[in-house]
Amino acid sequence: MTMVRESGPGTPDEGLLGEAPVAQAISPDEASAIAAEVRELISEGREQLALERLRALHPADIGLILAGLPGASREAILRVMSPETVAWVLRQLNPLDAGRVGARLGVNALSFALNQVHPQQALALLLRLPRRSARVLAGRLDAPLPEAEILEHPPDTAGALMVADYPTVASDDTAAAARASIAELWEDRRKYTHVFVLGAQGRPVGQIAMVDLALAEDETPVAGISEPIVAAVTVETEAQECARLRRHYNLTQLPVVDDRGHLIGVILAEALLSALVEQDTRQMLRVATVAGETADGPLALSVRTRLPWLTVNLATTFLAAATIGLFESTLAQAVVLAAFLPVVAGQGGIGGTQTLTLIVRAIALGELVGITARRLLVREAILGVLHGVWLGLLVAAVAILWKQNLGLGLVLGLAMLGNMIIAGSIGAAVPLFLRRIGVDPAVASAVVVTTFTDVFGFLLFLGIARAAISLIV
Amino acid sequence: MTMVRESGPGTPDEGLLGEAPVAQAISPDEASAIAAEVRELISEGREQLALERLRALHPADIGLILAGLPGASREAILRVMSPETVAWVLRQLNPLDAGRVGARLGVNALSFALNQVHPQQALALLLRLPRRSARVLAGRLDAPLPEAEILEHPPDTAGALMVADYPTVASDDTAAAARASIAELWEDRRKYTHVFVLGAQGRPVGQIAMVDLALAEDETPVAGISEPIVAAVTVETEAQECARLRRHYNLTQLPVVDDRGHLIGVILAEALLSALVEQDTRQMLRVATVAGETADGPLALSVRTRLPWLTVNLATTFLAAATIGLFESTLAQAVVLAAFLPVVAGQGGIGGTQTLTLIVRAIALGELVGITARRLLVREAILGVLHGVWLGLLVAAVAILWKQNLGLGLVLGLAMLGNMIIAGSIGAAVPLFLRRIGVDPAVASAVVVTTFTDVFGFLLFLGIARAAISLIV
Repeated sequence: MTMVRESGPGTPDEGLLGEAPVAQAISPDEASAIAAEVRELISEGREQLALERLRALHPADIGLILAGLPGASREAILRVMSPETVAWVLRQLNPLDAGRVGARLGVNALSFALNQVHPQQALALLLRLPRRSARVLAGRLDAPLPEAEILEHPPDTAGALMVADYPTVASDDTAAAARASIAELWEDRRKYTHVFVLGAQGRPVGQIAMVDLALAEDETPVAGISEPIVAAVTVETEAQECARLRRHYNLTQLPVVDDRGHLIGVILAEALLSALVEQDTRQMLRVATVAGETADGPLALSVRTRLPWLTVNLATTFLAAATIGLFESTLAQAVVLAAFLPVVAGQGGIGGTQTLTLIVRAIALGELVGITARRLLVREAILGVLHGVWLGLLVAAVAILWKQNLGLGLVLGLAMLGNMIIAGSIGAAVPLFLRRIGVDPAVASAVVVTTFTDVFGFLLFLGIARAAISLIV
Repeated sequence: MTMVRESGPGTPDEGLLGEAPVAQAISPDEASAIAAEVRELISEGREQLALERLRALHPADIGLILAGLPGASREAILRVMSPETVAWVLRQLNPLDAGRVGARLGVNALSFALNQVHPQQALALLLRLPRRSARVLAGRLDAPLPEAEILEHPPDTAGALMVADYPTVASDDTAAAARASIAELWEDRRKYTHVFVLGAQGRPVGQIAMVDLALAEDETPVAGISEPIVAAVTVETEAQECARLRRHYNLTQLPVVDDRGHLIGVILAEALLSALVEQDTRQMLRVATVAGETADGPLALSVRTRLPWLTVNLATTFLAAATIGLFESTLAQAVVLAAFLPVVAGQGGIGGTQTLTLIVRAIALGELVGITARRLLVREAILGVLHGVWLGLLVAAVAILWKQNLGLGLVLGLAMLGNMIIAGSIGAAVPLFLRRIGVDPAVASAVVVTTFTDVFGFLLFLGIARAAISLIV
């Protein structure tokens, strides 16, 4: 395989890992096996050998394995790893992984590594870490960082995603000037897909795709190869909106402008993608109210994230308990009803969650443009009828065969039909309503919907049972 | 804004929309407002005016609005829209949106549009549609498609994501040859980030980034600007694995090779991203067992997707019912217990779902490399103890104050503690176990976990209550 390396600001400094070229991809199973080997070697005190084993890997895999090591083993191998190598590994990771790996390496290892690299490279690295750690680290460096104020932007904004290093060319210049601008980048130039074209006022008036620049003669005027910019954002624009613009308009990088429309930064594809992955999977974590956690993060964070919601949910189960409490005399008359309490409510909960997940996702992906709320509501209510008829017949049949109680079967079937219709309607209505009043539907929908399906499930089942108690006992 | 257009195979044919340039981005709210206007105009029979309104928009927004229109309005506007415009809009969409919009436009509108464009462009468009519709459409075209066999690859494989049109250069050639190869592309050349370098055997031995090509002199040897290829896949590789490679190694395009290692296609960034978005959000849909559905898709598909799982879940709620049934005599002695049935089981279900969502996501993102299952299990069990102690105390206090029943409070508190520990352990164990035996944890985890937390919740609560019945009544 042809492997030619250049050194200089625009290319990663692979030389720091000795003569190791960028390695081939391996499977997660292979990575796990190597991680086990490395752990074994470190526990035997053979850190140098463990380091050799890692050196053969792609930096993305080195980072993943470092992050997965138990704390003591990680510190042992970091002691024998050169700080340049640590910095190099982090710079090769996508921002999502870099943030995760960086958080596990700790402030000491990171600031030691950052002090060994060029300030521009240190800044590029800090921009991959969670904003708070980045600011702490920036304060610990020997040399002041250029443009360190970029770290001050709040997380989840365009300002926190952008880099301040980007190629530009004047609109009345030529392709040669655009090329010269690329050669001056400090970040890895392969991360850029466009050169921005600046007008007389320093405002971006277009962009040149790298492929168009590759085909242009040096003397080609910029005007001959530039294309319009579809979207620009400000530092305050939310990361979620940046991710939406990227996906919807198929963009590869987004210019960031100030109040006067002057270019002040660019969000690269890798940052947009990390924001997108974050957004999409966080959506899923939000539904389960565990957003912000990782599977092996600090316990205190997990407790802080989950316990409030568990407590809120406890309140809603007490609402359900109070609903059942209304029918204590009915239950005393026919204690067989108690066994079927979870059936109607539980099915409603599942049906409601199916609907709301679909709607929450469609909202997140921006798929609901031009589709009226009424259309969605009617659709889900119809599905509720269809599911309710089938599940109602089934549950009635089982109850009749199992308990030899026709009345019980009828009551269960009717309650099931009613609750599935409620589940579908509420499952669609809640996220649409929350979005309208400006609450993130992913966070609050699940608890609201299951509270409805629980309470209505018990009300319907026990209410119908009370009315038809003579058929049951 | 500078807007220069070229025609030719490598650039989109904007001229087909008249003189309209690529428009600026708009917000989803603006898009919704325009969609409402367009619907209004069509209902008044002013389709031409509606078309004018759409023409001012970016194709991504035109597509979204077309997809959101009710069927009759959509057909009305398609009748006045030129087939070239339809094809142009679809080609500008990302594959995810193109598939969704294409599905709603219907076979007739699509095949009419495809017959008006160059076969190479028709193929590029078909590759954005769901595979089954693409094959139906390919059979309806007037002229046979070049390389139509590419449509035969099963969905969710690399073969279904790749395009057969890509730039290559021989490893002993120069930058000028790489440039010439780009000029021959039929797909929009701005979608490509690399030119592949082929060795003597026709095997890919490296790649040239567009930015490196942009900086190279015509006579620069290919060897001087090429870099190694980190990963290649075969047509059978799963889309999910392609998306993982992209994310993990920060790749922008993936070469597809045959058994002998010869290059046969390339997966572009946009297809990789669509696969990634699909994977991430499908994960969330899978947890709710609604994968494959869209919020406004056909009812029959929704019923087929959801009803099996609702039915499976019904079986598990009957298991819960049978568990409660074991304690009918205890419930008859203290019917107050019935009201608290949902409390312990419900909290366990929420806690278990929090844990499993986190683990399922970590598995999907490949974050668990080197992190042992035991570590995760112990962590979640400890969290279960912490949450259980707090929720147990709280639930005991509420029950004692509400029902003035010390025994009931003690029983509830103990059962809550026990069930939260079970919820944490099972929530972690189930997805890890399912992954080990090769079952997608996203699909089956939720139903298995909530069955456990329901059954154990009732067993613990009613079992302890039976043992301590003298304290309650």
